[in-house]
Amino acid sequence: MLHACIISTGTELLLGSTVDSNCMFLSQKLSHLGVRVIARFTVGDNREQIKDAFINGFKLADLVICSGGLGPTLDDLTKEIACEVAGCQMELVEEEVKHLQEYFARRKRKMPEANLKQALFPREAKILKNSKGTAPGMYLKKGGKVLVLLPGPPREMQSMYLQEAEPLLKSDFNLDEKQSASCTIKVMGPGESQVDEMLADVINEPWGCSMALLAHEGEVHIRVTAEGENPSHSKKILREISERIENTMDKYVFGHDEETLAGVVAQLLMGKGKRLVVAESCTGGLLAQMITNLPGSSRYFWGSVTSYSNEAKVKFLGVKEETLASYGAVSRETAEEMALGILSKSGCDFSLAITGIAGPDGGTAEKPVGLVYIALAAEDICTVKEMHFAGGRDAIRMLSAKTALDILRRQLQYGGI
Amino acid sequence: MLHACIISTGTELLLGSTVDSNCMFLSQKLSHLGVRVIARFTVGDNREQIKDAFINGFKLADLVICSGGLGPTLDDLTKEIACEVAGCQMELVEEEVKHLQEYFARRKRKMPEANLKQALFPREAKILKNSKGTAPGMYLKKGGKVLVLLPGPPREMQSMYLQEAEPLLKSDFNLDEKQSASCTIKVMGPGESQVDEMLADVINEPWGCSMALLAHEGEVHIRVTAEGENPSHSKKILREISERIENTMDKYVFGHDEETLAGVVAQLLMGKGKRLVVAESCTGGLLAQMITNLPGSSRYFWGSVTSYSNEAKVKFLGVKEETLASYGAVSRETAEEMALGILSKSGCDFSLAITGIAGPDGGTAEKPVGLVYIALAAEDICTVKEMHFAGGRDAIRMLSAKTALDILRRQLQYGGI
Repeated sequence: MLHACIISTGTELLLGSTVDSNCMFLSQKLSHLGVRVIARFTVGDNREQIKDAFINGFKLADLVICSGGLGPTLDDLTKEIACEVAGCQMELVEEEVKHLQEYFARRKRKMPEANLKQALFPREAKILKNSKGTAPGMYLKKGGKVLVLLPGPPREMQSMYLQEAEPLLKSDFNLDEKQSASCTIKVMGPGESQVDEMLADVINEPWGCSMALLAHEGEVHIRVTAEGENPSHSKKILREISERIENTMDKYVFGHDEETLAGVVAQLLMGKGKRLVVAESCTGGLLAQMITNLPGSSRYFWGSVTSYSNEAKVKFLGVKEETLASYGAVSRETAEEMALGILSKSGCDFSLAITGIAGPDGGTAEKPVGLVYIALAAEDICTVKEMHFAGGRDAIRMLSAKTALDILRRQLQYGGI
Repeated sequence: MLHACIISTGTELLLGSTVDSNCMFLSQKLSHLGVRVIARFTVGDNREQIKDAFINGFKLADLVICSGGLGPTLDDLTKEIACEVAGCQMELVEEEVKHLQEYFARRKRKMPEANLKQALFPREAKILKNSKGTAPGMYLKKGGKVLVLLPGPPREMQSMYLQEAEPLLKSDFNLDEKQSASCTIKVMGPGESQVDEMLADVINEPWGCSMALLAHEGEVHIRVTAEGENPSHSKKILREISERIENTMDKYVFGHDEETLAGVVAQLLMGKGKRLVVAESCTGGLLAQMITNLPGSSRYFWGSVTSYSNEAKVKFLGVKEETLASYGAVSRETAEEMALGILSKSGCDFSLAITGIAGPDGGTAEKPVGLVYIALAAEDICTVKEMHFAGGRDAIRMLSAKTALDILRRQLQYGGI
């Protein structure tokens, strides 16, 4: 298995307020290619630290990928240092000088002397085109190791990686024809340890494959990798074990690989030509936001009411004042009236309603923080599910919204929750 | 200035699907203490990689902080390797053995032999209590360097850092009495380069301080650090430059340090005893979600309507069909009717309405993607602002919601947008 090390440079990354999205992107892409990322280094724009990172990267891994530090300023050191560590001389590449001159000519500006360093490359390197910016990247194969340098801005880095670097990696390391096959099966409902228990039998058989569970915002992702004797053998093993897993997890499975819960629900609604409306209390707009996050959601999403006050529940959803007085805003009865109220006012096919206590305040012994009622209504049905979520305010809101989506998915897929 | 290196261990971090939140937490906390984080290493649960990380950490930094790998399993290697690199012998600490035995006795379970390794520590180390789990941490001062080992689960790591490790760091390195003083001034409206230009005069004076700009979801954070001759001198410089910056940025300044835009708006609304209602189209619930993200928001937030369809705009907001027909759903006129409609239906003091084109589809030459109208209405006013946002769907939605909040902030703070 090919081992990779990812290096991110940039002093701003070390302050802790920015997620190193380049590093996450590259980790995911490489993992999906079957490359094992064994270490990640983040260093400031500092000569000694960058040099150490390259030295250690080459020591640990066959492939070193670095993002950042390809610009024209004094701070931009990565190419120079990487070449020094790899033992390569850089020289001016005439074609790249021309590109730069053209770039500045088009903008009617004189090219600063400093920019010339963007045209310096070792003779043995492949130059990677930057379709979204000025700094070219670099791909160098030397002594059985590969070094890839990419620019720092995420848009430039991602397109250069996908268009230029990944194809070279695939052909140099035969990654397309990799032995292993893998997929991710996504479930919603049971927690990580429950999935682990449910799949104990499947895991304990000698399938020639490995399984990893990843809990992600209420979902559990089951990542299966099969290592057979050759690619088609791997795929066969993968098919068999995936089938076993899907049979065991059954209705909990909502999707695969890149699919999302909101995306699956969207497909189901569009497939049946149905429209959805939503009424939210404790989730305060989060469910609507998850749904409208997808481009084109206006085809199946009518709208929503965030009834954060009792008044809004009465005025906009038609919840009865007596219901609120007798049962409270967080109750099975209120959830039902919210769902039925907005369904009839909107004339949609399906409605979802959520009312609950997200905390940290507002809980009582009888109705503790985490108690959430989720109602689903359609022409001929109205069901309410009582949930008890653990965690803080953010977690309870997120789990409430996702569970509501999952209840609708199961209704659409299986005709029942 | 004290230099630190952060090491995160855990093979799951290298797959790219999990944000390394421990590393971000520690980076932020250390930066705020005036410690410069100069490198971060993420490595799998592998002896050689962990060892390299410690060797390089000690080479680069005075302070090495590592999270993860303190559990009882074979995979948990960090303490053993860190002590080897630091040249320390570990021995069984009787008191810790007792803690472990009590822990298992309380649970009526026999302690597995493997757990004994959690009671192994070098004689010279301070043991850090874990108030949320079983694995104790470790604080070791040796040869002018400090090594801190913390557990991996974020809850355990954070409370151990704050309760146990940070006080020791503060006293060992005099961080409370640090020379420098710093603060963050947060602005909304102008972009990063615009702020940079506006502050050019302030930056170019010899103030004895440094300034860093950080663009964050439409906001720009101006982080100022003053390095005087002593703490009170630093504070004086910081006060002077902050005042200059605030005078220059004027109404764009919405908050400081840990303050958020939604939090500032909440304080202003509560201070005046006013209630807010919201009508959203292209933001699809995001604005309501940002507002209700704060605990206690029901005190000033009445609710919202996500009018994703024209029908919802007519039925729930009272937008006239003629207005939609003549001007379109994305227009100054519709924004105004949305804001006035929901204001009168709810009886609130303020309403915000957003309608726009978030893309990627739906744009025309006349009404391109990124065109957004934001309306603010109150008893005696209704103003509409036309915005042209750049970026993808997510960015446009986020900028729309935040700009709406900022318009309300300026109305509440200055009586005008």
